[in-house]
Parts: sequence; structure tokens; C-alpha cells
Amino acid sequence: MSMKVLVILVCLLSAGRAVADEGMWTFDAFPSDEIERRYGFRPDARWLEHVRLSSVRLPLGCSGSFVSPAGLVLTNHHCAHQCLEHVSTSRADRVRDGFLARARRAEPRCPDLEVEQLVAITDVTEQVRGETAGLEGPRHLEVLRALAARLERECQASSPRRRCELVSLYHGALHHLYAYRLFSDVRLVFAPELAIAAFGGDPDNFMFPRYDLDVAFLRAYEDGAPARLDHWLRWSASGPREGELTFVSGHPGATDRQLTVAELEYQRDVALPEELLELAERRGLLTEFQRRGPEQRRFSGPALSLLENSYKELRGEVEALRAPKFFAARVAAEQALRARLAADPESARRTLPAFDAIARAVEERRKLHRKLHYVEWGGAFSGRLFEMARTLVRGAVERQKPDGQRYPEFHDSAIPAVTERLFSRAPIHDELEAVLLEHSLSKLRENLGVDDPFVRKVLGKRSPEELAGALVRRTRLKDVRLRKALWVGGEAAVNASRDPMIELARRIDADGRALRQRYEEQVEAVLRQSGEIVARARFALGGAASYPDATFTLRLSHGRVEGFEEDGRPVRPFTRLGGAFERATGRDPFALPASWLRARPRLDLSTPFNFCTSNDIVGGNSGSPVIDREARVVGLAFDGNIHSLGGTYGFEEKLNRTVALDSAAILEALEKIYRADRLLQELRAERGD
Amino acid sequence: MSMKVLVILVCLLSAGRAVADEGMWTFDAFPSDEIERRYGFRPDARWLEHVRLSSVRLPLGCSGSFVSPAGLVLTNHHCAHQCLEHVSTSRADRVRDGFLARARRAEPRCPDLEVEQLVAITDVTEQVRGETAGLEGPRHLEVLRALAARLERECQASSPRRRCELVSLYHGALHHLYAYRLFSDVRLVFAPELAIAAFGGDPDNFMFPRYDLDVAFLRAYEDGAPARLDHWLRWSASGPREGELTFVSGHPGATDRQLTVAELEYQRDVALPEELLELAERRGLLTEFQRRGPEQRRFSGPALSLLENSYKELRGEVEALRAPKFFAARVAAEQALRARLAADPESARRTLPAFDAIARAVEERRKLHRKLHYVEWGGAFSGRLFEMARTLVRGAVERQKPDGQRYPEFHDSAIPAVTERLFSRAPIHDELEAVLLEHSLSKLRENLGVDDPFVRKVLGKRSPEELAGALVRRTRLKDVRLRKALWVGGEAAVNASRDPMIELARRIDADGRALRQRYEEQVEAVLRQSGEIVARARFALGGAASYPDATFTLRLSHGRVEGFEEDGRPVRPFTRLGGAFERATGRDPFALPASWLRARPRLDLSTPFNFCTSNDIVGGNSGSPVIDREARVVGLAFDGNIHSLGGTYGFEEKLNRTVALDSAAILEALEKIYRADRLLQELRAERGD
Repeated sequence: MSMKVLVILVCLLSAGRAVADEGMWTFDAFPSDEIERRYGFRPDARWLEHVRLSSVRLPLGCSGSFVSPAGLVLTNHHCAHQCLEHVSTSRADRVRDGFLARARRAEPRCPDLEVEQLVAITDVTEQVRGETAGLEGPRHLEVLRALAARLERECQASSPRRRCELVSLYHGALHHLYAYRLFSDVRLVFAPELAIAAFGGDPDNFMFPRYDLDVAFLRAYEDGAPARLDHWLRWSASGPREGELTFVSGHPGATDRQLTVAELEYQRDVALPEELLELAERRGLLTEFQRRGPEQRRFSGPALSLLENSYKELRGEVEALRAPKFFAARVAAEQALRARLAADPESARRTLPAFDAIARAVEERRKLHRKLHYVEWGGAFSGRLFEMARTLVRGAVERQKPDGQRYPEFHDSAIPAVTERLFSRAPIHDELEAVLLEHSLSKLRENLGVDDPFVRKVLGKRSPEELAGALVRRTRLKDVRLRKALWVGGEAAVNASRDPMIELARRIDADGRALRQRYEEQVEAVLRQSGEIVARARFALGGAASYPDATFTLRLSHGRVEGFEEDGRPVRPFTRLGGAFERATGRDPFALPASWLRARPRLDLSTPFNFCTSNDIVGGNSGSPVIDREARVVGLAFDGNIHSLGGTYGFEEKLNRTVALDSAAILEALEKIYRADRLLQELRAERGD
Repeated sequence: MSMKVLVILVCLLSAGRAVADEGMWTFDAFPSDEIERRYGFRPDARWLEHVRLSSVRLPLGCSGSFVSPAGLVLTNHHCAHQCLEHVSTSRADRVRDGFLARARRAEPRCPDLEVEQLVAITDVTEQVRGETAGLEGPRHLEVLRALAARLERECQASSPRRRCELVSLYHGALHHLYAYRLFSDVRLVFAPELAIAAFGGDPDNFMFPRYDLDVAFLRAYEDGAPARLDHWLRWSASGPREGELTFVSGHPGATDRQLTVAELEYQRDVALPEELLELAERRGLLTEFQRRGPEQRRFSGPALSLLENSYKELRGEVEALRAPKFFAARVAAEQALRARLAADPESARRTLPAFDAIARAVEERRKLHRKLHYVEWGGAFSGRLFEMARTLVRGAVERQKPDGQRYPEFHDSAIPAVTERLFSRAPIHDELEAVLLEHSLSKLRENLGVDDPFVRKVLGKRSPEELAGALVRRTRLKDVRLRKALWVGGEAAVNASRDPMIELARRIDADGRALRQRYEEQVEAVLRQSGEIVARARFALGGAASYPDATFTLRLSHGRVEGFEEDGRPVRPFTRLGGAFERATGRDPFALPASWLRARPRLDLSTPFNFCTSNDIVGGNSGSPVIDREARVVGLAFDGNIHSLGGTYGFEEKLNRTVALDSAAILEALEKIYRADRLLQELRAERGD
């Protein structure tokens, strides 16, 4: 539906405030007029360019910002987590204990971290339409994929420091080519202890009130020296005031706000519940696995944390869809859209059949769901070992094809990420691999049934425990040299391999491909093409007054510092440093680090710590700067409240809140707890107040 | 809605056969005319009385039948599971290895097993209506409870071998007083090994094709001798033929086929998904707990099996509700019913507001759901130790009140079951108790939030692990003498106790009571009263042409031996003994017992083993006889297929199937595998063919 229709409906239904801060706007279509009307401040082209060039994208779904001319990057602790693992040694656990580089030469490199700065947006909609005109279904998809690969390749040809990406906005109503300046040498400057970065752990995740110092500073280097920048954000020592206008500039990962009702029902009734049940069971398994011993606790910890985060996210999403008012509003909005389209015979003829085509494709998707999940999407074969076997087997075949005809995950542009993961030296733990693989094999049997031919093919007469144990024990894929040899050796090497995990991946490859083809032809292609028809119709009606669904590309949201109501009780928008000490129990995950306990007498406990705003953000925005109208950093977005999780499907203005770390708390902690004088000096040199 | 409306709608939607075998009919309102019209056989009053008096109810949601004049009872292995545990010793594991009494004096007593035979049904609708007339909400509920307690007490006064129960049918449109003859001395005659009784374990549970010998024979005694009976079912040596008319006489536990759409949405979107997620996580936990060691595997096994059974059931239920056609049919049926009611101004005035009252009560129920679950329904406090503490604390207060004013679980009529459980000598395993309690406490914190006052009250500064560990370590409630002393000592003893588990139960008692009161007043009372208005209106329109929702009371269903279609492939209605040997892998749960492997050469492998029928049954029907028109036992119902799980909410005639063990397979196994000559002789003496 048009977002306007939704906004109006939501307002009608939720009654009260007339103005919503909904929207993840692209920088080239920001509603500055509307902001001026509402807040008396107009972000002009210069302001927007400055903020855009000060914003950066990080891998693994994170955002950040430049906060000094010498390449200093502000982001979340949890966005630097992998780097902290990398720079840890057996004697120094940087994740647990944090890190501070006291001199520039002590800033260690983060091997897998890159930073991308959006430097140009080119509209290629006409070209894409021209080359795909008249194509149907799978052929349309194939040509689009080939075109994307070509446009990206041509765009990045000019420089190795340029990365390009074809972005479909409004579900294909617009196609833009985004060009990034790439900073591939990124180093670590500062991170606090995990215990305060994620104080409250899973119980407090996605909650507010909150007390987290979820911050890390990195530095972008070029040619071995700190990058020299023309645009960076100044620092506000005081943080924001309640009610103050705030902007968040960052990279919301993915939203599904334009789905039809049929697609939403599929999410609500099939996709999300099935995944949640599987996560829940694996969560119980890992929780108990942790008790096998301290070593097992350590190496299974990250997997459990990641899982708990996904679990909470998906649960929030499905609960949003299950809220009767929310769903009723979506149904009404779609009816309103269809009524508008039906009013004109020509638009009715062109657009209305697309809704039915989507409904039929969703029906097919429901039928395919479990088989796809287990056979092709890896649901039956948990663990890193099978994943690597699958990559080797698939990759050997796919890489022989022309770029545009491959599965997208093996496009030339994706290969660096594939090999990065495939050749990773991160340790693999047999004990955990075997437990996860056994569990997923037993879920395969449970969900497709003992008599399913694929289940019989995989298990034969063996039990899941037996098969998983034998595979993990006998495979040699833990050896990175073997993986490299198989990758380099290609199809011949892979076909000659007698490694049991490779043999398994090979034996089931055709089953997965057949299912995927059926899915791509009968579901994906239809949803894409019919979805584009609906999206264009919607765009034609709503146009620039609406924003596109999130695509992990740069967006700007507006909002203000504002609390909310929980179960009828008001929740104030700020917490204070003192609150963390009150909340602490001394037991994980509510144990403050020793540095905090020691520094307590020195701290100004009334310093604002975390705050919440009505900005519309989702996962991917982690690490985004919260800025004021002067484009000064007043906070650092690191989370949303529990109601923000429904943001995937729509914005609930009365409840959805961004959760951020106050810029004043960062200064107070750097000064009085971490004594990070060099960093403070750099930030204060760039202070905007 | 009227069941007729539903039937018509389902027929319209599923197109194909015009005649459905839906219905769990009471014996006093069986549609014999309809059966005669359809099948050319008319069950007359004598036939019905004979079948009723040959049917029995067992505890823990099971059914059975008399199959000899000397009290021989046919039921499922899984219905005799607890008895098999009781008669096991450290040297003889009767659950695993089975049992056969070679002589009558070798039949051991099953301590907790009772058998109930329905001897009389009295309509007390007028009396109930008279005494509750004009009463609203909680007061209505209170008077009804007191009346039920009085009627049951008066009815059972005549004999200690009589048990009575007030049954509300059609959600209160009718009230019947059921009188049972009680056989409280029940002994074990025969049970096979668990490995063949539940061959296929959880993967095959609720599946068909199936290969289970899920049978046990018990014997009812009176005054130390086998009960002498006038009614029992004869045995069919040949079993049924495909397409043959079959009846199932038993005790379907509970169905919710008359719920309004608002109530169904609550089930679909809140109650079932929340419970499933919790079960899934606990399942993962227990699955991994099993790997702690063989001893832990043994003592946590039954809890895991029970949980897996519930998980599959609830998952089947929620999937039925999520099927778009199913739900659309329910919405349409309710609209049709409301339209009929609206047509007459008087009935509109009297009935339509009830739908809105139900919707409002459901909204309140959604709000209360989590708090009720964790605080009052035990969700936060898993394990037997807390359950016993809660029983002692609650029971001490409740037992001081007049019978009718107590919570129903402490009515005089319920006390024997309460103390049976409270004083049970079944071993309690600290290790499992601590893990379950820690887990549920962490779910409490996760779901109500760290800042919830109840969570703070329970946990204080302690972690779930710490609190659970301390409680389990320090409580003395494992000592059955202490439990008896506290029960007998009543409120004074309970209040004086310093046992930490008792202290916890005492400290949170008022919180639970307050929530429960709010629930009873604003939800339960409204749903009951408005539900009764809707039910009466529906009854007035549909009347005797419909059947009441299941209430774990005796019902008769009709059907025929018939396969079904799965993913477009036909599933034949019979399996053969030979199929079990083909399916066997030698690995649990697909390992056949040694007795079967040894007997294989002697067996007629073409003997029908399991079969499926279109009878409409649900949980509680386990152990029901499947009989032919001569009232001969042709099979033993022990399960339904996966599509039967939606039977809670409606009957899907094309897919819903009863799964039964063939009477011929029982004979073949008794003769050639178990050499149970005495038992065979008794059955054959009563053969009907």
C-alpha cells in the first residue's frame, strides 16, 4: 500500500498524536520541506551531503560515522566484536576486557573490517527497464542478475578503492547504482569491556530503560596512514535534550513494509513461527551444552548469543504481525489501494492481477517451505563443516558459468566474501559441530517424515546421531589447506574427493538445485515481477511522499528524544550512569566491570547514559550516529526497544523507539573510567559546542 | 457456529465426498437414523447400551473396553505405562521388556489405575438453570461450582463404588450428571516391549503408515476376585476390511470446535505459539541433558517423551488454525450464524452482544496471558518440588473453605487425586529439578522483563541459576513424611515452615491469587456466560443434529476403514506385520525387540498390523475399541494421523484419520511371539466369529 495510506490508517487507529516520525529516507529524496514545516529546521543540500559523506557502512550489518578528520570512526562495540576477537591472544581477551590504543602506532588492524562511504548515486532505472522489458519470470530474473553484475563491474573498474552496487528501491520501481569509496585498512582504537558494552545481556537486549556503553572507536587508514577526510561529524559534549529533533544516518538492513497481505500471512503463519521453533529448540540445546564445561561454555557462547538475538528479533516481528489492530490496518490499507487501482479500468487491468499472482505464488511457497528449508537452505545440515562442503561443491560448478548465470552468492562480486569465510582460520569445534548436525538431521527427519525419499537418501539405516558423529569424525575439512586445494582444484578435485562431508554435499546437490529452480520459477520470479507491478502502481499514487523499504543502503531518519508508555506506565527517555550501579547484581549479565566499580566515586552519576528517540530505524542501523540539527553527534544508536522489532513490517509511532548511547556518557567514561586522553583530545578538538 | 453450517462449508470448500464421518456423539443422542441411511445398519438402544457398558474410562486421559466376562480390559500400552513403571523393580524393567502374567495369581496390582464404567446419565439442566438464573459473572461461576460439588456428593453417597460428575455439554446448553461404577482394583495381565509398542518413537508418533503393537491387557477386580460382567465386547479374529463401517467408543478429551473467531485467534496467535516456543526450548534442553550420562538419560526420558508428544499435538493444532481455508471457513460460518441470529430482533438482542463480550474478554486474556502463565499457572517454577510446595501452601488455605468456595482443584472430589500426587514415592532427581527450575526462572525474567516487580520479588539480586540451585539443594520436600506432615498440619504447619521452597510458594501466593481473580472475573466468567448464550442459540438452531464438544466423557463415533492422500500420493489404509521388519533399522526408535526378531520365521507377515479409519477421535480416545456392526473388536485405537491434530478445532474429513491396531495382529503376536496361551484362550472363548 502507499505509505501515506498506512500512516493515515495507523493514525486513525492509534488516535492521539497527528505527526509520525516514520520513514527511512534516501539522501536524494529527503522530505526537507516536511521537516521544516514540523520542526522549523530545513536540512539543505549541503547539510545532507555533509552528513552522507560523514556516514559509513560496516560489514555484518552495521553502520558508523567519521568523527575526526583523521579517519576516526564511531560505531558500536557489537559491530567491532569480530575485530576484538581477532586482536585477542591467549593472554589478552579483548572481547571481555576491552582495548585502548594509547598511541597511534598501537592501533591494531581489524583483518575483516572494511568501511564504505557512499560517494555517488546514479539513477539507472531506464536502462534496467529497457534491458528487461517484456521478459517474464525466470528469464527476467536471469537478465536482471546479469545486468547487475555488468553494471557493478563497470562502475568499480575505475579504482580498486571503489565498490558499486545496483540497488532496487521501491521493490523495483527505481534502480540506482550506488558507488562507495572503500577503506579496507581499518584499525582498532578503543572498546570497553563486554560486561558494560552489553550490560544486561539477553534479558536487556531490545529493552529500555537501558544502561549499555555499546561503543567502539576504529580508524580508517589509507596507504598506511590515517585517512584524511573532508567530512566528519563534530561532537556534542552535552548530548540531546528531551523533545529535541534528532536525525539518524545509517544503513537499515531490510524491511518488508510493502508486502501484500498474502505475503504477510505467510510470514506470520509459516516463515517466522517455523524458524522461531527451530531457534527455540536449538537455544535450549546450546544452553544445556554450555554446562558441559568452561571450555564448551566459551566456544559455544557466541553462537548462543547470536541465536538469542535472532530469536528475540523474530519473536518481536511475529508478535507485531499477530497484533489484531496492526494486521487489520494492513488488510484495510491493501483494500484501499486496490479500490483506488480498480477505479481506473486501465490501471485495474494492469495491476490487479498482480495481487492474485502474488497470492498464488505464496500458496506455492507455503507448500515448498519445509523442503526448501531442509534440503536447499541448509536446515538439515547445521554447522560450519557442511556449510564449507556445500560451498566447495556448489562453487566448483557455479564458477564455471558466466557471471550472470550463476547463483547470486557465487557472482564475481561475492567471491571475496565467500573465500574469506571458506578459508577462515576461526577454530571449529568437533563437539559442537556434531551436536548441531545431529540435531538438524533429526529435525529433517521429524519435519519431512521418516518415509520421505530425501530423508531416506540422507540417513539410510543410520540414526542422526550415528551419521553426524561419523561425518564430523571422518571429514578432513577442518584443514584449511584441504579446503584451499578443493577450491582451487574446482570440479575435478571436488568430484575426486572421498571426504564424507563433500560426498554428502555432492549427493544431495541435485535435490537442492531442483527445489531451488522450482522456487525461483514459481515463487521468486513471480513475487519479484508482480511485486514490481504493485510497487510501481503504489509509487505512482504515493510517489516521492513515501520512502522505499530498507535495503542496507544509506538512509536518514528524523525523530525526537521521547519516551513511551509500557503497560500503561510512562517510560522516561533518559537513563543516568547512576542507574547502572543500582541495576547491577554482581551476577552475569548484570555484573559491572571492575573499572566501573573502581571509578564510581569519581563519576558524575547524573550524567545521561542511554536515551530513546522516535527515529525509525531497524537492524543494520547499529552504530549509526544520532545527530542534532547542527549535525553534531549527540548519541550513538545501538538498539531499538522491544516494540521496534515490528519495524520490519510497519512503524508503530506510539511505541517504536530507537535506543542510543548519550555522547556525554561516552565522554564521561572515556575520561574518568578509561582515561583515554588521546582519544578525548581528538574528539574534543572536533567539538561542535 | 452450528456444526451443520461448518459441515456444509467444509464440504463446499473441500469438494468431493458428500458425506462426512464427523462427530463425537453422546450415547443418549446418537444419530442412528443417519447411520442407517448411510450404511444400512441401525444401532438400536440395546446395541448402544451394550457398547456403553462395555466401554471404560481410565485415568490420565485414556479409554478401554471390557473384552471378557471376567473383567479383562483392553487398552493401549501407553495407557498402562505408569502401571508398568510401578510393577518394575531394579531387576525387571517392565516398561522396556514388557510383561505377561502366566497365571491369574501372577497378575500384579496397578496402584494408581482405576476403571470407570458409565452406568447412568441424568439430565439436570433445569435444576442448574434454576439455581443460577439471573446470576452474573463471578457469582454465577461460584454458584455453579458449589452446585456441582453438591450434586456430585449426593450422587456418590449411595456407594463407595460410585463416582459422579456434572458434565456441561454444548458449553452449558445442557447439564448432565454422569454416574460411573468404579473399579479401583485393577491388575496387569499383559504388555509387550516398549520398542514395539511405540516402534518409531517420536518420529512416527501421529504418523501413518505405522507399525505399533500399542496394546496392554488389564483386569478389573472386585472384592479380590475378577469382576463379573454382564457386558463385554467379543473379539474378531480377522480384523476389519477396507471400507467397512467402524465405530469407536471412548472418551475424547477436549475439543474446541465451538469457539468464536476471536477465541480461535487467541489460540492461533497467543496461547499455542507461546506454549510451543517454551516446549521447543525445553525440548532442546532435555535432549542435550540426556547426554549427561546413561542415568540422566533414563530418568529424564519420560519427561522428554511426554514433552515431544505435547509439542507435536500443539503444533498440529496451530497448523490447522493457520491453514487459510480452515480459518476462512470458520470466519464464514460465524458470519452465517450471526446473520441468522440477526434476522430475528429478539434473538439479535439476546445473543449478538455475547459475541462482543467474548471478543472483549479475549482482549483482556491476551493482556493477562504471560503474567498468568508465569505467576499463577506455574510457568516460572518448573519441576515437581515447587509444584508440591504450591499444593501444600494453597491446599492449606483452600481446604479450610466450604467445598463450593474453593478453587476447583481443591474440591473434596479432587482431593484424592491431589494427595495421590503429593504423596507419590516416585523418585525426584535434583539434577533435573535444578535444570528445569533454572530454565523456567530465566523464562520468567525474559518474558516479564528484568524490571517487573514480580521478577524482582522472586529473583532479588540472584541469578536464575543461583536461586534454582539453592532452592533444590536446601528444600526438604523430597521427604514424603515432611509433605504428609505439612498437609496434615495445614495452615499453621505451612506458615511455620522455614523450608525455602515453601517460603517461595508462600511469598508469591497472593500475586497468583490476584491475577487469577482478575482472570476469573474478567475472562473466565464472561467466556462461560456469553459462551453459553452463543451455545444455546446455536443449539436452538442446530439442536440434536449437532454433537457437543468433547469433555472426556463417553462418546461414540462412526467411520470406515479408509486411506487418505498425502502430498498428492495415496496412503493405503492397512500396514502388514512384514512392514515392521522392512522399516526396522536396528537403531532406536526403529529397533525391533529380540522377541520379534526371533519369532519372524513363524509369523504370517501378511497379517494386517495397523489400519486407519475416518472415525472422528482426539486425545483421550487412546485405548478405545474399534468395533464393527456386530460390536466385535476389530481394532484398538491408539493414535490419529498428523491431520487428526487439527481435530481440536474441526474435522477435516479428507485427511483426518484414526490410527488403530488390528485385532488380527494382536492375536498373531500373542500366539507366535508372546505365547500368551491363557490370554488367547480367554479372548477366543469370547470370539464373535
